[in-house]
Amino acid sequence: MESTVNRIQSSLFRQKVTSAAEAATAIHPGDTVAISGFASAGTPKVVIPALADRIHAARGAGSNFTVNLLTGASVSTETERILAEVDGIALRMPYQSEATARRKINDGRMDYVDIHLSHVAQQVWEGYYGNVDVAVVEVAGVTESGELIPSASIGNNKTWLDVADRIILEVNSWVPAAMEGMHDVYYGTALPPNRKPLEITRVQDRIGQPTYRVDPAKVVAVVETNVPDSASELTEPDDVSLAIAGHVLDFFAHEVKAGRLPADTLLPLQAGIGNVANAVLGGLDRGGYRALTCYSEVIQDSMLRLIKDGAVAHASATSLALSAKGLAELTDNIDFYREHITLRPQEISNHPEVVRRLGIIAMNGMLEADIYGNVNSTHVMGTKIMNGIGGSGDFARNGYLSMFLSPSTAKGGAISSIVPMVPHVDHTEHDTQVLVTEQGLADLRGLSPRRRSQVVIDRCAHPEFRPLLHDYVARAQATPGIGHTPHLLGEAFSFHERFLATGSMLP
Amino acid sequence: MESTVNRIQSSLFRQKVTSAAEAATAIHPGDTVAISGFASAGTPKVVIPALADRIHAARGAGSNFTVNLLTGASVSTETERILAEVDGIALRMPYQSEATARRKINDGRMDYVDIHLSHVAQQVWEGYYGNVDVAVVEVAGVTESGELIPSASIGNNKTWLDVADRIILEVNSWVPAAMEGMHDVYYGTALPPNRKPLEITRVQDRIGQPTYRVDPAKVVAVVETNVPDSASELTEPDDVSLAIAGHVLDFFAHEVKAGRLPADTLLPLQAGIGNVANAVLGGLDRGGYRALTCYSEVIQDSMLRLIKDGAVAHASATSLALSAKGLAELTDNIDFYREHITLRPQEISNHPEVVRRLGIIAMNGMLEADIYGNVNSTHVMGTKIMNGIGGSGDFARNGYLSMFLSPSTAKGGAISSIVPMVPHVDHTEHDTQVLVTEQGLADLRGLSPRRRSQVVIDRCAHPEFRPLLHDYVARAQATPGIGHTPHLLGEAFSFHERFLATGSMLP
Repeated sequence: MESTVNRIQSSLFRQKVTSAAEAATAIHPGDTVAISGFASAGTPKVVIPALADRIHAARGAGSNFTVNLLTGASVSTETERILAEVDGIALRMPYQSEATARRKINDGRMDYVDIHLSHVAQQVWEGYYGNVDVAVVEVAGVTESGELIPSASIGNNKTWLDVADRIILEVNSWVPAAMEGMHDVYYGTALPPNRKPLEITRVQDRIGQPTYRVDPAKVVAVVETNVPDSASELTEPDDVSLAIAGHVLDFFAHEVKAGRLPADTLLPLQAGIGNVANAVLGGLDRGGYRALTCYSEVIQDSMLRLIKDGAVAHASATSLALSAKGLAELTDNIDFYREHITLRPQEISNHPEVVRRLGIIAMNGMLEADIYGNVNSTHVMGTKIMNGIGGSGDFARNGYLSMFLSPSTAKGGAISSIVPMVPHVDHTEHDTQVLVTEQGLADLRGLSPRRRSQVVIDRCAHPEFRPLLHDYVARAQATPGIGHTPHLLGEAFSFHERFLATGSMLP
Repeated sequence: MESTVNRIQSSLFRQKVTSAAEAATAIHPGDTVAISGFASAGTPKVVIPALADRIHAARGAGSNFTVNLLTGASVSTETERILAEVDGIALRMPYQSEATARRKINDGRMDYVDIHLSHVAQQVWEGYYGNVDVAVVEVAGVTESGELIPSASIGNNKTWLDVADRIILEVNSWVPAAMEGMHDVYYGTALPPNRKPLEITRVQDRIGQPTYRVDPAKVVAVVETNVPDSASELTEPDDVSLAIAGHVLDFFAHEVKAGRLPADTLLPLQAGIGNVANAVLGGLDRGGYRALTCYSEVIQDSMLRLIKDGAVAHASATSLALSAKGLAELTDNIDFYREHITLRPQEISNHPEVVRRLGIIAMNGMLEADIYGNVNSTHVMGTKIMNGIGGSGDFARNGYLSMFLSPSTAKGGAISSIVPMVPHVDHTEHDTQVLVTEQGLADLRGLSPRRRSQVVIDRCAHPEFRPLLHDYVARAQATPGIGHTPHLLGEAFSFHERFLATGSMLP
């Protein structure tokens, strides 16, 4: 292992090296704290636990200590959990996926604002979240001139470093030094009326610089670490995931044949996080595609294999969220992967301008869809938040094709992911073009609501739920004067109410 | 009045002049017909009535004759009505606002696809609506070299002329010849992967040309007309509209004071169609603003006065939908207005890239909002479509500020526009930042759902409905394990069900 001292080339920054506990004293009760991290990658490792200790001690001494916590997206589960466990977070934005924090949010004990990930940086710049007091940002190193080498995710770090009053850096020597050069940090964003076109026309285009800028006067502490990112463990694709992936691949082949997608390259792919997305991506090399590209938020394990195989020529994202095996593969072959991967700020990876221009094929998971194509990505039974909308809306609204994927049932068949009406809408009927379950694929493009309902039920719903859904639609359509989008308001949530009452959506 | 013959400078096109009845014979049963028109401006005047006659005659002779009808947005009510009356439309997209068509759609006798207006051109190019057989496009004239001078709206005309197999032109000499030069028709759009940045950084930037291109071999008929656009009549702002406008102006002043909006110019404004939007715009010169800009779909009467007064320096839109008085004002002062107005294709007026870059302040009407900020713009009581989503989503999602406006009640107080849950979602909680009724303004930025519900009820709901809404929220929040976004699924639509049963949302 190389010496940590080599990672801090600037003497100005070396003078600021201190302990995590000391650094955490720069964070005060009531502060708004913006930290690095996107999915499992790039979360600061030691200062937040030290902050949690301070909060715990303050609480023990009878004084209240909470902060508002801003991130890129989810951060490592350990970090999210320890702050939630000490009730240290007053307001959380823009995304989280950890069990303890989720429970506090659902109990109404933690404020949570769930927004499109492409909107975070601009909304903070616009002042919607007040002053940002402290940024805690993990980096891979500090150059001699005092610029910062990013670690395994970028997220909103550029913005946090720009807007925070005080900055704490964690310099993590576990991050491969050879990762330097993989990042493209764009400094051309601005508030209107001073915005310019983003000059990205291909996935691999670089418009920024490999490092973050920082005002050294704002840096109050530098903490040295050597701690791996927590791993994103994925299971091997199961039959359901493989069936979904198969339908997606068939659809791509169909679209190529119809002349609506380029044959060898398709269009840049975006896939959400998780096992289904991983299975779809993993199936792509069986489709015979060469020189595919990806423009997404997160790079998962399957992407590394596709790059190695030559199926994917270039992948752009804001985070490398890998399993332990994937992390080893990346670090062992970092010089190779650096040529095929570009990491960007999330305001660029998810930017509506770029998503629209590149013509992204957006594939995101969902909790449930209704018979007209409205999608619930966030709220179990309409009220309990799971994670958040993340970047799914950034890609679904502005992409070339907008696809939502899910197994047709959950909880051993007790829950149908196709329901009469979703009790929470994250993506409207105007924004969903294709729904896919292991049962099949519903192509909703150009269909009126009544036609959509038949296709969704027949292609995507589990056979056990189809008669119930058809019965609902038939009775809704038979209601005099019912209108364009037939519903029975008194029964629209009958599936959900039955589940809440009996533990199953089946009668 | 000038002679019509001057409007057709190309002899090639003069040879194709014929009657409307003859031209309409180029349209066959089952054709997909794309016509000009956006709001009340630029609808073809005579060929569609002639087509309706053909359809009526065919039906009388016992044969079926329907077409699929694609437009920019709504077209003149007469045109929409006559085709709907003869049951001539199989599929209609992307927007309509006429009573007879609405009834057929709600009865399930006309297929209707309600999509974001910025998506229309690309989806037709992508082939989602099959082949476009015929385009019927109104123009103001034909140049000597065979280019076409647009009339009072552009909409999707550039796309229709590009993709249609056969083209019928209506040359309308009622359109002021001096309107030439007001249009900016951009020919740089493409399907991915060949898209380039749109080089618009200010509202007045021009990136195209003043005329449409057309392949003369595709032009099967040219019909001469001299028919005014139907007028968009607006009522004088009532007290409710003026109160809403007052809250909006107060909010702008507050945002300027907070440093979140530029003082004299604000940011480019977008306002939906209708009396409330007209009242808000009409109030702007009382705010003391100079050199405002607008980047919107439609220019209404109030905009002409703002331009004349110097409050607005430049307005960009895709349609001039004016009252009879406004039409007279425009034509009498066309040389002045041409310098301050730019008309663009709707794929540019509503383009997410430009909307995000310019930092649009989006102000759109709504039917109702729920206590968490989800907005229903389209479906009365969740099932009966009113008009359609139009461009509201294009602006709301990607703008700098996303505001939705409505009186707090409808039907003489029987309907509350603030409800526990909207039974159809066009704009999600992630996309609405500010709700405004005559009661007040709810600023939802940075608020979690529970906080939002209090602000929405207290600021926007009519006092008669506040106790009912507070009671719903209190009981939902008190339900054990209810979650992040409290709802009682069995009562979520109780307001709507009561209205359907009794004619009032009040108990």
